[in-house]
Amino acid sequence: MFTTEIFTSFVWNLFKIKHMQNAVLITIGDEILSGNTVDTNSNFIATELKNIGIKVSQIITISDEIETIKSTLKSAFEMGDLVITTGGLGPTRDDKTKKALAEFFDDEIALDEATFEHLKAYMERRGRIEILERNREQAFVPTKSTVFQNHFGTAPCMMMQQNGKLSFSLPGVPYEVKPLIKDQIIPYLKEKFNLNYISTRIVSVVGIPESILADQIEEWELALPKNLALSYLPVGTRVKLRLTATGTDENVLQVQLEDEIQKLFPIIGENIIATSEDKIEKILGEILSEKKLTISTAESCTGGELALLITSNPGSSKYFIGGVVAYATQKKTDILGVSEGIIERFTVVSEEVAREMAEGCQNLFKTDISLSTTGVAGPGKGEDGKEVGLVYYTIKVKNESQTFKLYMPHLDRQDFIYFVSQKIIQDLVGILIAQ
Amino acid sequence: MFTTEIFTSFVWNLFKIKHMQNAVLITIGDEILSGNTVDTNSNFIATELKNIGIKVSQIITISDEIETIKSTLKSAFEMGDLVITTGGLGPTRDDKTKKALAEFFDDEIALDEATFEHLKAYMERRGRIEILERNREQAFVPTKSTVFQNHFGTAPCMMMQQNGKLSFSLPGVPYEVKPLIKDQIIPYLKEKFNLNYISTRIVSVVGIPESILADQIEEWELALPKNLALSYLPVGTRVKLRLTATGTDENVLQVQLEDEIQKLFPIIGENIIATSEDKIEKILGEILSEKKLTISTAESCTGGELALLITSNPGSSKYFIGGVVAYATQKKTDILGVSEGIIERFTVVSEEVAREMAEGCQNLFKTDISLSTTGVAGPGKGEDGKEVGLVYYTIKVKNESQTFKLYMPHLDRQDFIYFVSQKIIQDLVGILIAQ
Repeated sequence: MFTTEIFTSFVWNLFKIKHMQNAVLITIGDEILSGNTVDTNSNFIATELKNIGIKVSQIITISDEIETIKSTLKSAFEMGDLVITTGGLGPTRDDKTKKALAEFFDDEIALDEATFEHLKAYMERRGRIEILERNREQAFVPTKSTVFQNHFGTAPCMMMQQNGKLSFSLPGVPYEVKPLIKDQIIPYLKEKFNLNYISTRIVSVVGIPESILADQIEEWELALPKNLALSYLPVGTRVKLRLTATGTDENVLQVQLEDEIQKLFPIIGENIIATSEDKIEKILGEILSEKKLTISTAESCTGGELALLITSNPGSSKYFIGGVVAYATQKKTDILGVSEGIIERFTVVSEEVAREMAEGCQNLFKTDISLSTTGVAGPGKGEDGKEVGLVYYTIKVKNESQTFKLYMPHLDRQDFIYFVSQKIIQDLVGILIAQ
Repeated sequence: MFTTEIFTSFVWNLFKIKHMQNAVLITIGDEILSGNTVDTNSNFIATELKNIGIKVSQIITISDEIETIKSTLKSAFEMGDLVITTGGLGPTRDDKTKKALAEFFDDEIALDEATFEHLKAYMERRGRIEILERNREQAFVPTKSTVFQNHFGTAPCMMMQQNGKLSFSLPGVPYEVKPLIKDQIIPYLKEKFNLNYISTRIVSVVGIPESILADQIEEWELALPKNLALSYLPVGTRVKLRLTATGTDENVLQVQLEDEIQKLFPIIGENIIATSEDKIEKILGEILSEKKLTISTAESCTGGELALLITSNPGSSKYFIGGVVAYATQKKTDILGVSEGIIERFTVVSEEVAREMAEGCQNLFKTDISLSTTGVAGPGKGEDGKEVGLVYYTIKVKNESQTFKLYMPHLDRQDFIYFVSQKIIQDLVGILIAQ
């Protein structure tokens, strides 16, 4: 057992690794296989590794059984230079990763004093004076491992090496994984290896279906340099073109990417809404900040998703003033000033109500832009008998108001709310760019 | 090539399969390996399979390369009775799954007339008169495959068989995957196989850390019948105990599960907040409906997540009246009636402001319960200089108001918003149960 520092100074030269190009991620946990939990750790780790030029070639989710863990470690080490496991390190009976690690590396588990001290301090800070035997067990690690201490949980991260390849075993809790990866493992890998760079740019295209887009840019795609790869990612009615460049010089890659993106403009320039940002809420944030415009929301069927989407962008407090979720019909009248006559005449899920909601929202929050939604997310029909999947939304920019209708009966409640919200922000971006 | 019906009638007896116990899911897509997209399909499919007694033993995410797809199909068929692939079937150059399928099954790809007709009708319905060569290619399938038509996209689902095992290849778009699985594949599997039943119950426990809980229920856990498995799933400060029972008689399993859960009450009864529902927003929905209570929200740092969480439960319109996202300080005063003097004296991120927000919210929406949040989600500090990760929230039930403080500086913006919202609903459930 070594601390990171000692390990660095004398063990390192024993296995200087040239290659650190690709990684395999192993997610250990029955809760993911049973559909109880979505694996978000792999997504986070893959992004972080990509940013330092390490490509993830496989993500494998397995159950928490010693033999399965061992055989998966074996195939992962054959495939990747780096193996990262998450999960299976909790204090309870169903976590078997540590035993599997020790067996796989032909090692034993022993108490690591430094880890135990760290654990005690951690628990005392959290007001837990009594240290259970079960907690003490968490300070047992394979003797050949290098421990990276976990500052936000009780399970330590263990690094092992085999034939010049590395593995890291982390707990499964996302807010423990994130700092371990970001603050400890990534800096460590950057320091130890000469890494390739991977640069990515995303071009957001609207108004062309994926297949027609593919036809239009086919020549451009076929002429791309060999170190550039293209992917199509449809998100709602938007298509994201992802260009990934791999090489040794970051600046060269960036110039290459910019060059290729510029060549797209003569072909599909009118349909491109962004070439740097990936997420629609970030694209919106940039435009609103640049144009110094403020925005507010009045939601019914989207239940707060529109506000959440806009505010999920850090710095959104500069342009997002506020929102109302007017779920009950009466509140559309009370708070947003939608006239009762209009509701009676056209029903609550109607073009007219959407328009009045946006109007009332703009007045309430005194913003340049307001967005409104009224519809039926399902699974039950609307109070007014309107069909599931129907929504009217209004985008009001200063004095100009446009109302749209969407009918998506095939989407379930959650997908409907997500799709509609993405589409509204996307439409707004289109309107603002065209101005 | 067969339609499902013809296939059923005469091919079926050729390979009657006894076992259909476990499945392997293969996700094909560089966008997941690069961290661009979170794989939500596997989660959905795993849940649906579990419900009909098929256990997912592995989920593998691989890149869109013919050789990789073939070798993964090989190992998946060794491991599982059923293989389901998603992704890699789009109309663009980067999708290679179909070629890999044909090579793996020693087959050829040919135009399937029925699929082409279906595709044409689908596109015409969507207003696309011109059928591109690229679209026509989507009607090419391996000749040995049975096609399940996709009613919500252009890529068909193909079923293949090998040594009495089955594979289904689906596109990757979640809203195409869901109906294919739910409306076609699951009914098909249920009809064709004698399946085991898997029953799951989740017991939600609050107020005990995972390790102490594990100690307290150790005897109970060790005495569980062999066909029952227990998992611990920590979610925020709640621990979900998942009990899974496998067997041939669904009623027997349900009785077994109920029996074991009843034995938990003498041990940790005070800490159990639910024994049937999994999600905190569903637990809340049941309690509110039963007690006939209404609720509203006034959010600042959570940006709409609290409203979205409550309304994500179908039927929430019965108890959720509405919410305000008062992002700008001025709106806390204008809409919620928080006094300017209080904000000046205590700053906007304070116990006092949280309390007044909940008060104002209850008045505005005329609800029995109101919830409020004011805090700093980061990454930048609050306007008033308050630290990132600090939040005050108030839970007001009728005339009783309680304000809490949380400080979670280690969480990023997104996790912070999620954690805080979960915690508030969890606290509210605790309060309502204790009444």
